[in-house]
Amino acid sequence: MENKLDKEVKVGICGLGTVGGATLKLLTGENSDEIRRRAGASISVSQVATRTLNHSQVDGIPCVGTDPFAVVNDPSVEVVIETIGGYDPAYQVIKQALSNGKHVITANKALIAERGNELFEVAQKSNVVLAFESSVAGGIPIIKGLREGLAANKINWLAGIINGTGNFILTKMTSDDRQFNDVLEEAQTLGYAEADPTFDIEGIDAAHKLTIMSSIAFGIPLQFDKTYTEGISEITPEDISYADELGYKIKHLGIANRSLSGIEMRVHPTLISKAQLLANVNGVENAVMINGNAVGSTLYSGPGAGGDATASAVVADLIDIARHKIARSESPIYPSLGYQTMYEDAQILNIEDIKTEYYLRIPAMDRVGVMAKISSILQTHGISIEAVIQKEPISEIVPIIILTHLARERNLNLAMNEIESLEEVAGAINRIRVESFEV
Amino acid sequence: MENKLDKEVKVGICGLGTVGGATLKLLTGENSDEIRRRAGASISVSQVATRTLNHSQVDGIPCVGTDPFAVVNDPSVEVVIETIGGYDPAYQVIKQALSNGKHVITANKALIAERGNELFEVAQKSNVVLAFESSVAGGIPIIKGLREGLAANKINWLAGIINGTGNFILTKMTSDDRQFNDVLEEAQTLGYAEADPTFDIEGIDAAHKLTIMSSIAFGIPLQFDKTYTEGISEITPEDISYADELGYKIKHLGIANRSLSGIEMRVHPTLISKAQLLANVNGVENAVMINGNAVGSTLYSGPGAGGDATASAVVADLIDIARHKIARSESPIYPSLGYQTMYEDAQILNIEDIKTEYYLRIPAMDRVGVMAKISSILQTHGISIEAVIQKEPISEIVPIIILTHLARERNLNLAMNEIESLEEVAGAINRIRVESFEV
Repeated sequence: MENKLDKEVKVGICGLGTVGGATLKLLTGENSDEIRRRAGASISVSQVATRTLNHSQVDGIPCVGTDPFAVVNDPSVEVVIETIGGYDPAYQVIKQALSNGKHVITANKALIAERGNELFEVAQKSNVVLAFESSVAGGIPIIKGLREGLAANKINWLAGIINGTGNFILTKMTSDDRQFNDVLEEAQTLGYAEADPTFDIEGIDAAHKLTIMSSIAFGIPLQFDKTYTEGISEITPEDISYADELGYKIKHLGIANRSLSGIEMRVHPTLISKAQLLANVNGVENAVMINGNAVGSTLYSGPGAGGDATASAVVADLIDIARHKIARSESPIYPSLGYQTMYEDAQILNIEDIKTEYYLRIPAMDRVGVMAKISSILQTHGISIEAVIQKEPISEIVPIIILTHLARERNLNLAMNEIESLEEVAGAINRIRVESFEV
Repeated sequence: MENKLDKEVKVGICGLGTVGGATLKLLTGENSDEIRRRAGASISVSQVATRTLNHSQVDGIPCVGTDPFAVVNDPSVEVVIETIGGYDPAYQVIKQALSNGKHVITANKALIAERGNELFEVAQKSNVVLAFESSVAGGIPIIKGLREGLAANKINWLAGIINGTGNFILTKMTSDDRQFNDVLEEAQTLGYAEADPTFDIEGIDAAHKLTIMSSIAFGIPLQFDKTYTEGISEITPEDISYADELGYKIKHLGIANRSLSGIEMRVHPTLISKAQLLANVNGVENAVMINGNAVGSTLYSGPGAGGDATASAVVADLIDIARHKIARSESPIYPSLGYQTMYEDAQILNIEDIKTEYYLRIPAMDRVGVMAKISSILQTHGISIEAVIQKEPISEIVPIIILTHLARERNLNLAMNEIESLEEVAGAINRIRVESFEV
């Protein structure tokens, strides 16, 4: 890091959308005295690039333009905040800034999850920080918690509600007994969901965040392509109601787990006990539960999105960088992913190799003996039943709800195929994984 | 910090009780590879002092004795872990270690809250770190969260369940409808409460922790003597049941609040809405909710005590120090209380100057007109009523339960005095404060 005596940090911001705009406001607004006292340096925004130039938005900033590379190539800028989003030109902007010896702060979870390995290498070569607290769970300082606060632990597992849109939809479906598509439309009207909601509801956004947290938890390189992803669009109010009857809520979770056979990274709807604090995190809130072998289980919750909450994390990264500068560190204090030496060859399990409990909703015909046939198939595959719900038939098809004990997913898939091919079963089984996290 | 190339950090531990013993185990046990990879240095315990020498406990440690000053005066020791507890000799041990230019890590909340101002000054003069993550909320990285993760925020308020013993007692009283003394005895049998439980049940331990968090939240010097403290021994199962009827749970909270007129620091039983996540933190668990002006409300929960959880925080501090050493910082990165320049003259409010809502249980005689008299007194003092519960009389005395709107405590005290002197009121009013935290 630079060895200057003047206690000022010069910042350039690329992108003035929701997060970039809120960051600029936070740095220049009523908190600036508090930020200066905490950082031990005044932080001045000296360069801004925005696609749609609106001078009133950047009142008092000396250099404003539309070219992000003008920011990253300005020799006076020490820290670049990348809030452009997307893959290009964000990737090039970050890479160029790092190569130029500037610290970079980004909220870009897709970029970190998919191309972080390369970018962290560039940062290391240039001896600068690439900080990304705001990329996971918005304003909740979860990266810092994992990388520093829990650094003495072997992390056993973590499980998080890390997509506010999905949690809003499931919460509304639960509280108002409404269909998925109906609530999705409301979320779009309210601005909680994009016009194309795929990233949120199919779990891709959550998988990006899970990929990042898994690397910090287990010291493994970022491996987004090995993260299993399943969305929430198949969840019905009936499933939510049966889950409730069994003592569970359905949440869209990102789960990372370390077992003897390898590491699991998976995003999918999950039944969790209503008694869990995590089950009571509602609406657009995010929460992450982390289990370490020394500390036990801790939980972190709060606003997972929104300009101000995300800017809170961006500026926290900035204050950290300022503090490092004041202390005249010769190199970044924290390895990007928390490890000076990573576990490069840790095995990531295929989803078929995981072991968990399952909720099955089987559309069975109202005929004698069907339950016996289903039980027998499950037994053949070594799967035992924990609970069953079978209601009075109201039509020809009567759903059978089964909660299994722990089973290997490969075995469950075989059993599901056989059950679905029974002539007494009228369609596809709805299968939801069940997790019982120790507190 | 020292400018060595050998990547090793030599640690001395003073005190091998619950926390010290767990710390030694954590550093030398199965996590040591993970800790070395995260710290970028191997951490070796080179000196240990324990009051009751038991050689099997410190197998493999070269220097073991009973004199903590032998540890702090050993030139090879770079970091001293103080897990003796209490005021003396812990204070002298820490001070001597800091003066000798050694970093110090302590779990001693009483010492930090009551004598931290002096100790931090010594640390600053010696250009070393005095770290105390483990002093508040055990394994939850709440100091780091406040001081670093939320550093961009003006903290508006924080509220925490920060004493596991008290929360265990209130949880059991609630779930099992039992009396305070009865549950206290059970807590003592289980080892959750000390033989002399005063520190826990009277809120002194919580006040120590609240004092520390308040300083970091607001950038003010530690002022334990200005923290208002009220215990839980007056809470009855009846209060818990009335609170439940009104939609609340009773929790023993430490609350720090910043208003226009000043800063509040107070520990007392509190009614909070059942819908709050904080209300659902049960048993010996701790949780802290923090509201910042950028991030909104975030919550942190987990094990607030126990050897392993506390050792997790002690070793996290140690890894931070090792990382700073590897990065060759010239001075500590983080100011002890998070501010390079404090707000020295911020005003701390007297409890009579706070404004909150109140729950009142008034032991009234079953006579005509008593409710009218009470209402009139409250009205005279500008206090309006939000809800009332008055049950069928089962004896001569019928409790009247009143929930007020926001009122100044000074006014409420005057009103309570007048109500208690009514001839229709048979004894002291039980008053519990009510807080409605925005999420």
